[in-house]
Amino acid sequence: MVVEKACILRRLLKSCLVQRPACLSTSATMAKSKFEYVRNFETDDSCLRNCYIVVRLDGRNFHKFAEHHTFLKPNDGRALGLMTHSARCVMAELEDVVIAYGQSDEFSFVFKKTSTLFKRRASKLMTHVVSQFSSSYVFYWREFFGDQPLLYPPGFDGRVVLYPSNRNLRDYLSWRQADCIFTNLYNTVFWALVQKGGLTSAVSVVLLKGTLAADKNEILFSEFNVNYNNESAVHRKGTILIWERQEETVKKRTKSPREEKETDATVTRSRRRVQEHHCDIIGEQFWQEHPDILEQDGP
Amino acid sequence: MVVEKACILRRLLKSCLVQRPACLSTSATMAKSKFEYVRNFETDDSCLRNCYIVVRLDGRNFHKFAEHHTFLKPNDGRALGLMTHSARCVMAELEDVVIAYGQSDEFSFVFKKTSTLFKRRASKLMTHVVSQFSSSYVFYWREFFGDQPLLYPPGFDGRVVLYPSNRNLRDYLSWRQADCIFTNLYNTVFWALVQKGGLTSAVSVVLLKGTLAADKNEILFSEFNVNYNNESAVHRKGTILIWERQEETVKKRTKSPREEKETDATVTRSRRRVQEHHCDIIGEQFWQEHPDILEQDGP
Amino acid sequence: MVVEKACILRRLLKSCLVQRPACLSTSATMAKSKFEYVRNFETDDSCLRNCYIVVRLDGRNFHKFAEHHTFLKPNDGRALGLMTHSARCVMAELEDVVIAYGQSDEFSFVFKKTSTLFKRRASKLMTHVVSQFSSSYVFYWREFFGDQPLLYPPGFDGRVVLYPSNRNLRDYLSWRQADCIFTNLYNTVFWALVQKGGLTSAVSVVLLKGTLAADKNEILFSEFNVNYNNESAVHRKGTILIWERQEETVKKRTKSPREEKETDATVTRSRRRVQEHHCDIIGEQFWQEHPDILEQDGP
Amino acid sequence: MVVEKACILRRLLKSCLVQRPACLSTSATMAKSKFEYVRNFETDDSCLRNCYIVVRLDGRNFHKFAEHHTFLKPNDGRALGLMTHSARCVMAELEDVVIAYGQSDEFSFVFKKTSTLFKRRASKLMTHVVSQFSSSYVFYWREFFGDQPLLYPPGFDGRVVLYPSNRNLRDYLSWRQADCIFTNLYNTVFWALVQKGGLTSAVSVVLLKGTLAADKNEILFSEFNVNYNNESAVHRKGTILIWERQEETVKKRTKSPREEKETDATVTRSRRRVQEHHCDIIGEQFWQEHPDILEQDGP
Repeated sequence: MVVEKACILRRLLKSCLVQRPACLSTSATMAKSKFEYVRNFETDDSCLRNCYIVVRLDGRNFHKFAEHHTFLKPNDGRALGLMTHSARCVMAELEDVVIAYGQSDEFSFVFKKTSTLFKRRASKLMTHVVSQFSSSYVFYWREFFGDQPLLYPPGFDGRVVLYPSNRNLRDYLSWRQADCIFTNLYNTVFWALVQKGGLTSAVSVVLLKGTLAADKNEILFSEFNVNYNNESAVHRKGTILIWERQEETVKKRTKSPREEKETDATVTRSRRRVQEHHCDIIGEQFWQEHPDILEQDGP
Repeated sequence: MVVEKACILRRLLKSCLVQRPACLSTSATMAKSKFEYVRNFETDDSCLRNCYIVVRLDGRNFHKFAEHHTFLKPNDGRALGLMTHSARCVMAELEDVVIAYGQSDEFSFVFKKTSTLFKRRASKLMTHVVSQFSSSYVFYWREFFGDQPLLYPPGFDGRVVLYPSNRNLRDYLSWRQADCIFTNLYNTVFWALVQKGGLTSAVSVVLLKGTLAADKNEILFSEFNVNYNNESAVHRKGTILIWERQEETVKKRTKSPREEKETDATVTRSRRRVQEHHCDIIGEQFWQEHPDILEQDGP
Repeated sequence: MVVEKACILRRLLKSCLVQRPACLSTSATMAKSKFEYVRNFETDDSCLRNCYIVVRLDGRNFHKFAEHHTFLKPNDGRALGLMTHSARCVMAELEDVVIAYGQSDEFSFVFKKTSTLFKRRASKLMTHVVSQFSSSYVFYWREFFGDQPLLYPPGFDGRVVLYPSNRNLRDYLSWRQADCIFTNLYNTVFWALVQKGGLTSAVSVVLLKGTLAADKNEILFSEFNVNYNNESAVHRKGTILIWERQEETVKKRTKSPREEKETDATVTRSRRRVQEHHCDIIGEQFWQEHPDILEQDGP
Repeated sequence: MVVEKACILRRLLKSCLVQRPACLSTSATMAKSKFEYVRNFETDDSCLRNCYIVVRLDGRNFHKFAEHHTFLKPNDGRALGLMTHSARCVMAELEDVVIAYGQSDEFSFVFKKTSTLFKRRASKLMTHVVSQFSSSYVFYWREFFGDQPLLYPPGFDGRVVLYPSNRNLRDYLSWRQADCIFTNLYNTVFWALVQKGGLTSAVSVVLLKGTLAADKNEILFSEFNVNYNNESAVHRKGTILIWERQEETVKKRTKSPREEKETDATVTRSRRRVQEHHCDIIGEQFWQEHPDILEQDGP
């Protein structure tokens, strides 16, 4: 074997000296460099510095997707669980995401103001988020839907929005949670009327037109004996994901310098983990309890 | 049941007349509209008209991904097949893609100049392509890798580039194919030296440094008795996907107006399908044979 | 003097060796570099390659400006002359402008597709055009308005638009000329009704509402004995500026190698100059007569 | 005259009913609408909300311009005065500018965060600033240079930069003032060496290479008996323009309701005016004294 290798080496080195027509041998390299000018058509889309970068993704045609996969109405716990799990996968890959908020078939990821991930290039940030989310959604389907098969690969689209101040960012998140609150109450009443009240969709739509939150709460309570405030927080408030430090107790085998025999010590270690919340993020309390999520606006 | 429904309706209509403090009932709607200003922070990123829109995606950390999944070197037929199948899924969803070109862990999708899909918004176009590709890659893994499990969801990133003229677009595609030609020849020799020649990676790199295409062909031929031109076209040239009309023969049961009995007629029907090619796209021949891919640049 | 200089030099070189607290001496430099990060907030706005870059400028509040400076209605020859002269100044500064078109208080400048001026940065291109135009307008005012004073410095705003193909660019120029044709005919009739017909502005507006080009021509002819086609082309068609080669006859004093005495020879020399046209640019003729303005779109 | 007008009206109304071939009469309108699609090639370049918008302009080839117009070295009071006066014209036109800072041949204009001027379109903002500045520079030349003629119209270019926070904006302004401090000290020493010391430019450059601020101060003091700190603040610190409220005493003729005769009263009125400063803006003092320039970043 050693002999053989030596032969190869010797012959190869010799072949390097062989005279050959340059025109032929360099064609591929030449061709490539001739076309390389097309790279200059790429444009720089890096995000303005010192702004929060929000990537929001939405399920594409998820109304149909939900029907095809017989999602429960108004909320399907399995579907929401899979959305959240996929969002966790995104956060695990991209540590600069300081908070994510999801509801229904959408999820928003907030990158910290000072992030320099992918040189802040908008296209890289949004495609990476959407790609990781999409592949995770399919990959973990079975964990949430068991034997019910995924019929076709789903699609999500994404966008990037910048928010310069803490106020703007909080208002963005409040907007999405207000949308969740609003939509979920509507859907809860609507499906109660249809599923329990036996009304048609069309009639239910007409009935609900123009009703206010108080009306809907009243309908749920008086007609269906449902106290909306007792409904699950994940449905009413959506899902918040943030990084939190947690104390972990780990057993560690140590050997003291003086003694000769090993002992098992219990060590406490702090580790950052993604934690899930389903609370209000419109008011002050959440932000006071987690002061590290937002950066200070400055002087 | 009819009675019950009527009761619900009656009570609901009555409840609509109930007096209630406006301050409470409108809070959710008010809150939402108060935050809605944040939508104005979104920017318009629609692509310049009358240009080809190219979305290129690349596997993220696919060097590692290939190792973890023991892809064959230098080319893994299953992996390339899965890439191509995922690209087909993208084309099936987005009919404005006129040609796609893939090699290694990348794929480029070309939208026609006149496309108005997603109002030509760059973010929508690239995220949709990348999302559909990613979820398809996981969804169809089993079809290509059988029982070998996918260990974790892969990531792809994407970008958008505009090309104003046919010449620019063809040069872009030529650039990618020249890259394929160049890289694949290198990899073929490299892995021959390592796998068949028993050389280490480091030695092989040194040996190949500065060698030209002709050198590499010579090494393959004289050392390993391999005629590179007989290698598979899919590896040497990459994969081209285009829409082509095909005649289909369909049996159709018809009933002539005069006669009373039905007869089986054979009908020829033309249908657009995505076809796969592995030929040269740098020269003129391919474009002459498929004159419909590119639009005329005009007078 | 020489002695004095030597002294300065000697002392200066000595002073460079003086020990001083570094903290004090470097403060200015340090301060500057501490703030320099703000440069990274600038974004790259370079224009897509291989597209025509059009910079169009418009007079700001020129309706009022025209009133304040008693411009003649419907067209003021002096004002149009000054516009054109200012546009020539822009072209003299920026040779990559291949054609300019002006009418009323607007002017469009077309940069060639391959221009790399200011690295194709949109902000540089448009501000330079607008700045040169504005300062020229004030600078040359007296040449066109004589002793009538300029009452205040006028303002112009600008924008950049990209056109990928010759067809698009020609359609852009046709759009501006069609606007000129349309507007000028309207204004000619309107001011005839007011100035010669003695109608009020309000009545004239009502009368002209909904009239077609033929109606307006007819009114001019039958009421005011004006054949619109005999009106000045500069008003009806606007102003086109292009670079043209011209033969110049120059006297040159030469000395033939054989003879000893100098002689005056007449030499013909070709030179690029900006030429003014007032013809149709919507049809083919102009472009056939000046085939060098537009670049070929390529294969 | 009345009869004549009536005739015109009658005939015009009749002419509107005349039958004419539609193909001819509508051609101009049709042509225009046929081309109007080119408007869709314009892109939206509106600036991100809630950020300071800075437009900075720089003299183009001002090194040469200064030579041609024999500007005094190192600072020409007339030239700086004209720059500042032109900047005042810009501020008078654009009230959303909250502060402007100028030095040498550059000026920066800061639009307030909440400005909606020109819908925050970057191209409109920068071209308007640059245009107004350029035309004012020529218009007011005589007020500063008297009979010394302006030889040709000068050019300025501009750019737009966004700053999300007060800290960023203040650092931007500090950067420009630090540049002024740095450059002016250098120029003062350089021209002292050349003009008073009789050294050549080349020798002076070599001497100053690598010197620190303290060195330059020392050279000025020991060689030329100049205490740099006594030099004019406008040269050392540049020019700051801000809006300030001022009390004005105005005589007003009033007539009390009870009495019959008019009396002259002295009324105090507050008015916003652009005020000029030449102080430090890097430290805190200026900002504490003018707390209204910057908006609060918010909670």
